[in-house]
Amino acid sequence: MTKLPPASELHPVRAFAMDVDGVLTDGGIWWGPGDGEWKRFSFLDVMGLSLARRAGLQLALISGENSPLVTRFARKLGIEFVAAGCRKKADALRDFAQSVQLPLESIVYIGDDVNDLPAMRIAGLAAAPASAASDVLAQAALVASRSGGNGAVREIIEAVLNAQGSSASEIYDRT
Amino acid sequence: MTKLPPASELHPVRAFAMDVDGVLTDGGIWWGPGDGEWKRFSFLDVMGLSLARRAGLQLALISGENSPLVTRFARKLGIEFVAAGCRKKADALRDFAQSVQLPLESIVYIGDDVNDLPAMRIAGLAAAPASAASDVLAQAALVASRSGGNGAVREIIEAVLNAQGSSASEIYDRT
Amino acid sequence: MTKLPPASELHPVRAFAMDVDGVLTDGGIWWGPGDGEWKRFSFLDVMGLSLARRAGLQLALISGENSPLVTRFARKLGIEFVAAGCRKKADALRDFAQSVQLPLESIVYIGDDVNDLPAMRIAGLAAAPASAASDVLAQAALVASRSGGNGAVREIIEAVLNAQGSSASEIYDRT
Amino acid sequence: MTKLPPASELHPVRAFAMDVDGVLTDGGIWWGPGDGEWKRFSFLDVMGLSLARRAGLQLALISGENSPLVTRFARKLGIEFVAAGCRKKADALRDFAQSVQLPLESIVYIGDDVNDLPAMRIAGLAAAPASAASDVLAQAALVASRSGGNGAVREIIEAVLNAQGSSASEIYDRT
Repeated sequence: MTKLPPASELHPVRAFAMDVDGVLTDGGIWWGPGDGEWKRFSFLDVMGLSLARRAGLQLALISGENSPLVTRFARKLGIEFVAAGCRKKADALRDFAQSVQLPLESIVYIGDDVNDLPAMRIAGLAAAPASAASDVLAQAALVASRSGGNGAVREIIEAVLNAQGSSASEIYDRT
Repeated sequence: MTKLPPASELHPVRAFAMDVDGVLTDGGIWWGPGDGEWKRFSFLDVMGLSLARRAGLQLALISGENSPLVTRFARKLGIEFVAAGCRKKADALRDFAQSVQLPLESIVYIGDDVNDLPAMRIAGLAAAPASAASDVLAQAALVASRSGGNGAVREIIEAVLNAQGSSASEIYDRT
Repeated sequence: MTKLPPASELHPVRAFAMDVDGVLTDGGIWWGPGDGEWKRFSFLDVMGLSLARRAGLQLALISGENSPLVTRFARKLGIEFVAAGCRKKADALRDFAQSVQLPLESIVYIGDDVNDLPAMRIAGLAAAPASAASDVLAQAALVASRSGGNGAVREIIEAVLNAQGSSASEIYDRT
Repeated sequence: MTKLPPASELHPVRAFAMDVDGVLTDGGIWWGPGDGEWKRFSFLDVMGLSLARRAGLQLALISGENSPLVTRFARKLGIEFVAAGCRKKADALRDFAQSVQLPLESIVYIGDDVNDLPAMRIAGLAAAPASAASDVLAQAALVASRSGGNGAVREIIEAVLNAQGSSASEIYDRT
């Protein structure tokens, strides 16, 4: 962790909401023949999200892009709250908080670019991968040492689990 | 920023012209079955170009390759000036300057290889990603710490915005 | 090698069993149009596995994913023991040990995430790529300086060959 | 350059022969749906090879893989000598030397793995990317600071051009 708040600030965390491109991916879009596009996700993050869910934490994807890959990723992970093609991420974050009946203070928002800042400002904790845009790095309270799509989300989830007295392997063994 | 001129040299900037492969991509071409090819762009740069445009700066793509991906990228970003399959990049840069009625002195040219040098020599400012060829790194006045396709263009745009008293998040919030 | 046990602990090694995603790949999944997925393997590892086999060492793939790419990789390398879609990796490792009639003590297990830990605990030696999850790095006796899909498996195989008085080039020249 | 012989040893160089996977690519193979495979080349190397040819240097590809991508790459670059699916690289290197009527002493061979060593031993100079296997790094006289598929070949070509009193930009401007 490049930036980590005291454990006491991570105790109240009950949910993770996050952007997709640049957070769960390396921010890359591969274009090839035809109209399609390719993106790269990471198994480290897939496992991290799965462990967070098993630990009883809520999950949401809030993406500015309207890509079928967002829904596909949410379906693979069983994530119920998905906002795609989202122009107002703070509003989507409020909708998510309401849908899971949690105060905004208990939600970590993970973003990597300026369109994530409105959501990061109202979330309980703002987190970012090492590869985030400079304004985002400056405003995040939690900055992973790993970059987007390469375990940043996993690292942030583990930081919260550890602060709450648990760990990835303990949750895996127990559930 | 690995190399950054004094802010006063960035004040007159009104436009960015740039190469595509190695600048907006990591310089990679993926080949697979069939004749097609794949390239990787980055959302950090997409957002950077979009913010530059919202800030009133002009944009141009000047590529030596004649790839449908260049036009597709320009269309996604709404970039009007596109020179593809270009053998004489300095000429294309002059055409761009004329088309937007700006002096060459007000244009930043971002390149990564020796075929960019003629355009870099006549532009107001020559910029390059960290991953550029050695001759280009030596001649660029502005060198990003990020590599091509991984936020180098974004970093260069932000350096100019910052020197002009603005920032990515300020432009995002305002526009 | 970031972590390396004394050579005496590598003398008894007769087999390598390993996870696939994050170990033989960089942990990335590329999604594109349609339902398919892409993964990236490395020729350094392909050659390493081929040399291990020529040196008389046994090989097994034990993957939690049920992907056709696992079987394709095993077929390319002539690896006979493959457990795909595996929920209980320690059981699969025991099956492998029995099938090749080797004690668990003589098997190196290479893993990168918490679902590999049960197999890592019963293997003779637990190894991991530099890019593994933190709990795995903490429990592995051997940690490569290369990351998954970028020669970590090759490096681990060579460490064993070297401890046994051999080397990659010696085996290549001899066989 | 991580390892660089004195300029006098680079004066006699008249040709470059090289492996493909791990040298002109990052050693990765992407597999997806169907039987096809994807590899990633780099424009820095494409330009480097093109400049070497313009400078009058001869080029050869000598690959252990029998992939259509090798021929496609050779065709794009106009490289006439191609050995694909090659089991005996030293023999192929001798064939190349004969076909261009040059002594082996005047040829740089660039390889990254143990199957390149026989050719590296008979070439005038053995060169390798930073990402090569350890036995290859140990035996190469020239080691690039860039990795395979990310400009290593370009860097090695430029080292030779520089030792011969030329440079990439000088050749580009002149030809």
